[in-house]
Parts: sequence; structure tokens; C-alpha cells
Amino acid sequence: MSFNRQKTKDEVIEALHGVASEMHDKMSRGTPPTMTLPVRSKSNIGFDNKLGVYKYGKKKTIRDASALGSARQLLRALHITEFVEGMIVDGKTSTLREMYYISEGWGHGKFSSQNESNNLAEDLEIVTKCLREDFGLRPEEDGARIIGNVTFEEKNRKGDWMRINCRDDVGDSGYGVPYNVESEKLRLIEQDVDFVMAIETGGMFDRLVENGFDEEARCALVHLKGQPARSTRRMMRRMSEEWSKPILVFTDCDPWSFRIFASIAYGAIKTAHISEYLATKEATYLGITADDILAYDLPSDELSKQDSNALQAELSDPRFSSGWWQEQIGLMQEIGKKAEQQSLAKYGLDFVTDTYLPEKLSALGLTY
Amino acid sequence: MSFNRQKTKDEVIEALHGVASEMHDKMSRGTPPTMTLPVRSKSNIGFDNKLGVYKYGKKKTIRDASALGSARQLLRALHITEFVEGMIVDGKTSTLREMYYISEGWGHGKFSSQNESNNLAEDLEIVTKCLREDFGLRPEEDGARIIGNVTFEEKNRKGDWMRINCRDDVGDSGYGVPYNVESEKLRLIEQDVDFVMAIETGGMFDRLVENGFDEEARCALVHLKGQPARSTRRMMRRMSEEWSKPILVFTDCDPWSFRIFASIAYGAIKTAHISEYLATKEATYLGITADDILAYDLPSDELSKQDSNALQAELSDPRFSSGWWQEQIGLMQEIGKKAEQQSLAKYGLDFVTDTYLPEKLSALGLTY
Repeated sequence: MSFNRQKTKDEVIEALHGVASEMHDKMSRGTPPTMTLPVRSKSNIGFDNKLGVYKYGKKKTIRDASALGSARQLLRALHITEFVEGMIVDGKTSTLREMYYISEGWGHGKFSSQNESNNLAEDLEIVTKCLREDFGLRPEEDGARIIGNVTFEEKNRKGDWMRINCRDDVGDSGYGVPYNVESEKLRLIEQDVDFVMAIETGGMFDRLVENGFDEEARCALVHLKGQPARSTRRMMRRMSEEWSKPILVFTDCDPWSFRIFASIAYGAIKTAHISEYLATKEATYLGITADDILAYDLPSDELSKQDSNALQAELSDPRFSSGWWQEQIGLMQEIGKKAEQQSLAKYGLDFVTDTYLPEKLSALGLTY
Repeated sequence: MSFNRQKTKDEVIEALHGVASEMHDKMSRGTPPTMTLPVRSKSNIGFDNKLGVYKYGKKKTIRDASALGSARQLLRALHITEFVEGMIVDGKTSTLREMYYISEGWGHGKFSSQNESNNLAEDLEIVTKCLREDFGLRPEEDGARIIGNVTFEEKNRKGDWMRINCRDDVGDSGYGVPYNVESEKLRLIEQDVDFVMAIETGGMFDRLVENGFDEEARCALVHLKGQPARSTRRMMRRMSEEWSKPILVFTDCDPWSFRIFASIAYGAIKTAHISEYLATKEATYLGITADDILAYDLPSDELSKQDSNALQAELSDPRFSSGWWQEQIGLMQEIGKKAEQQSLAKYGLDFVTDTYLPEKLSALGLTY
């Protein structure tokens, strides 16, 4: 399966019509329509040597309209294609939540939960080889914030390209990444940085900004806002690809942060069909590592039951199969601790920029 | 008690020294030091006729150093004053989370939870008559986003004033409000709008932006991001005061959204000592109301047990004592339902801007 980027409106509509016509053809032949999708779980992702990211494997599920549940899903898929076509024609977009409410009018196709409509939007990506962004379907959450000497152009509502330097043209909160960062909406114009640092928490992002780390270390800072939105992951991929800059990921040390890194560097399980667009294979995990908790004697918390379960699950997640990750996860299990980025403040507000990051960066061969 | 805005660094440091010298004086006289604070709960807020907002009443708690727990709190307060003075001298700020970790070095003064350090920062505001922003203590959460034809100047890290029009100089995600919006950091320059609309959810904010509601209805749109940060509330207060614009609040219809409105219009319980800075007495609740659920036949959800308890608590909250609120809360209890802003999408993506908002605004005497 390969996605063809830069689809025109007509191509997207044609792909949507394909869904309907395939069902129609099957029914004309007296066969119940089906939709074949990859199994979307940890057990069905594998490393793609050519792409350098994790993709779905060969396991498939088949939705067959001769079963009521599956028939309902196929009906919903058709309603979505109709709704999306209408939006494309009108030049509109919609949140996934709005689509959920719009389904109120779809009779038997009405969604019974938000999760259902989210998943189905991803199913349709797989079937049509289009992106959710091509459909104009948006998530609720905000995209990342960026601060540093990098310049983008974003197309505004009037259709004009607006140039924004993320150091000189923004306030303290930085440049807010829009939900659609494809080249018809956002262009990477120029940069004067040595690397990009993606940061999990707002507190640490603001710390690095206040300490002038972006200028001193010549880097762009990206606030991930927890589990990063698709647009955030796509932006990092584009900065890595178009600017050939290293992407360093700086998070808390807990199993959920490891998943954040995995979704950035290897591909998320839910979106493994488009890992080659969203994942940055050159991304490096900078810290906080389990080693750091010991080496820097960081304030830490006990692992909760859920933390321990998540760590255990990661041991069998193919994305964490490398020796380094197995060691780090093993060490966390052994010490039974997790730590936050901001725990570095134990040694004062400047410790992270004066000591911790220089030491970690120099271990990676980056000095400033 | 009255707060004197525009404190200089020296005045803030002097106020902090006052905390220490008062304790010192008491101890010199052989008396255990105490700290007297208003009771910070629903039972101790009352309407201040002069200010037009809710303030703390007369109930006090006294922290007396002859009890171990109270002594520890006084010790922490002293550590904070020292830490804050250091930051002011160095021109730094810190998140509340960082202060929590910095307390690792405070021996018996170490915080045992984040909640404790947050509350103590507010206690110190009361005692010193300074604002947390004067101390350089920041929350973790992001401030609001603003889109519309309003122009601010924000002082950047280099000390230069940067002019930003929230329609022409920002991307789709809008202008991000910084944590400190006092006049030494942020200036309201000019506007060409008839009112300000504060919106609870990102999905609805993006909907109004996409539909061009800010231009059509001549308004500034503010995305509250759930329970609004102090800076967001202060910005609305300033827009109301300096520009004399009506502030309309558009939220979900559930008990938590009512509290969002109350914190904007009447003052939040936790920050009632500074309601006159944060609350906008001219703010109006636009919807979604319980009436709207019935009038527009909106998709709704059953009230959960927690929702019902919160509604019941609001009936005895002095801020909801008006006849209108008592009626709305009573009606919600009667129908047992809540509804989201985005449920208006049941009638299509344009219903909110073509029908719902024009009808609601015209009921308030605002037409466009």
C-alpha cells in the first residue's frame, strides 16, 4: 500500500466514490459487500526495512455485510464518504466530534461512540489511500507550539501565504501548528538551527525558552503537548526530511513517555498505515532515561500498577525490541521508579540547560 | 484588602521581607508566629457590592507555629519568599511544578504534594498583596488562543514590544495568550469589534473561525481551553474594562461549564482574593442553556452521578443564587440531561453560525 500525497479535490472525491462503487458492484452481483482492513494492534506491526518505520503486517479483518455489526459499519462508511464529499465541495472541514453529532441524522448509521467515528475515519484512510486531512476531518486537540529561528509560511483563510519566523514574529507562546501541515497549507521556508528538540511538557518547554536555550544551542523547540497530534508528528518528519536536522526527543521517564517517543520515531500503532508520513526514523530519545534517574539522583515516584503493566507490555512491543530499550525498561522495572523532566529543578532552574542537556547532547556528539 | 497593581520589583521584595520580619518580630517577643488567612471555600464568599464580584468573607483560619503542621507551612512560606526573591533578582520565572521540585532542598519545608505548593503560592498572594505573576510563578497550562480584529503588543524576551493583530498576523491557531498579561508585558492597542465571545471547546472555536463568524459578527473569539487560566480571565477583564466590550460566554451545558462561567463572571472560589482583577462582572452566559436542549432538541447525555452532585452543590453556591441560574439548574435536574456545544452539528456545520448564534444574540439585543 502506498499513499500518493498531494491529492487534488477531484482525486479524493474519486477515491471516495470508489468505496461506494465497490460496494455497489458486489451487491449487483448478489454478493454481500465487504471491507478488508489490516488488524490494528501491536501483534500486527512490523519493521519495514525500506521505509525505516513500523507498518501493519499481513493480518486482516474482513467486515462482511452479512453480519449486522459489520453491515452497520459499511453503512457508516458510505455516510462518511457522502459527508466528506459535501465538505470538499463546500471547502469546509469538521472536527471528528462534529461528524459524530452529524451522524444523528444517519438512522442505522448513527455512531454509538466517538471512538467508533475516530476509528472509522482511519479505516477510510486505509481503504481510499487518502489522509484524514484530505477529508477535512480534524481532531479536537491543539497542535504543537514551536519557538526558534525557523521560518514557515502558512496559508490563511483568505488564501494568502503568511510568513512567520518562530523567534521574531511570535509571542511567548510561540507558533501554533495548524491541524493540516501538508505543503498546500504550510511551507518550510528557512532555518538557522543545528537540531530540533521536541519536549513533552509545557513547563520544560517554557524553561528552555526562558533560559534562551534555543538561541544558545541553536535549535528549534517543539512543545509536544503530551501524546503529539498527527500534525505535530508530520511537522517533525518534514523538518527532518526537508532540512536534514536531527530530531531529539526530551520527555518524562515513564512508560507513557516512551510511547510518545515510539509514535514519533517508529510510528504509532493506530496510524501504522501512514507511518512513512508521520514517523521520523532519525529521531533520537534524549531522556529522561532510567539511567538518568540514578546518575542524577532525580526525585522520583513509585511506578503505579498501570505503569508496571504498561512497561511489561512494552517489552513485547516490536518497537521496543532493541537492546537499548530492553535494558532501559528492565532497569525501570528493577528500580520501580519513574521521574518527570521538571524533577531536574531539584538542582535549580538552570541545571537543565547548564548541566543536564550539555552532558546528554555531548554524549550524542552534539556540542554547542 | 486591596491589591496595588504595577508593583515594582523592589515593592514585591519588600512585601516578601514583610512576611519574614513579621515572623521574626513575633519570635523575638517570645510569641509563636502565626499567619491569618481567609477560609477559602464556597461557605466564605460573598458578593462585594462595590466591586461587583465575589470576594472572601470574614471567616479566617489561623496558622499557628505551635502546631507542627502549621509550623511546617510557615517554614515553607519563608522558603518560598527566599526562592521568589532570588528569581526576581535574576529576572527568572518558574512553574509551580518546578518550585515543588526545588523544595526537595528545603528539609522540613519540602512539599508533600503539588496541591500544597499551589495553595501556598495563593496564600502568599493574600499575605503580601502581590500577584503570583509578580512572584514569577507560572502554571503549567497554556493560556487562551484569540482570533479576531484586535491588536495587542507583547514584550518579547529581548524587551522589545511586538505588535500582533489577531486576524492578520497569526496562523489558524491564533494568538497564544502568555501567562503574564499585566501592562508591563501586554498592551491592548486597538480593536474593531462589537463584542468578545469566549468559547469552551477547541472544536467550536475552530468552527466559528472556519465559518468566518469573527468577521461576519464583528467579534473577537477567545478559546478558553476548558477551565480558563488566570491569564485568560485577566485578558477578558481587561478587554471588558479598557475596550468596554460585552463578553459573551459560550460553553457546553453541564455543571462544570457553569463553573467556568462563574469563574469568569463572578470570580473563582480559589482566587476570590483577587476577583477584582480576574473577574468580568459584565460577562453574560450565552449558552448552551438547559432551555436550549429542549428548544433545539439537541443530542444530549444523561447526567452522571458526579454531574448531579455538582449541580446540587451549585444550588447553594452564592454565585448561582440568581433566579435565572436557579431555574436553569432546576430544569437540568428535571430533564436529567447535559449537552455539548458541538451537538449543534446535528443540524449541519453552519447551523451554529446561521441560526443558533444569531437567535441567541438577538435575544440579548445584539444583531449583526
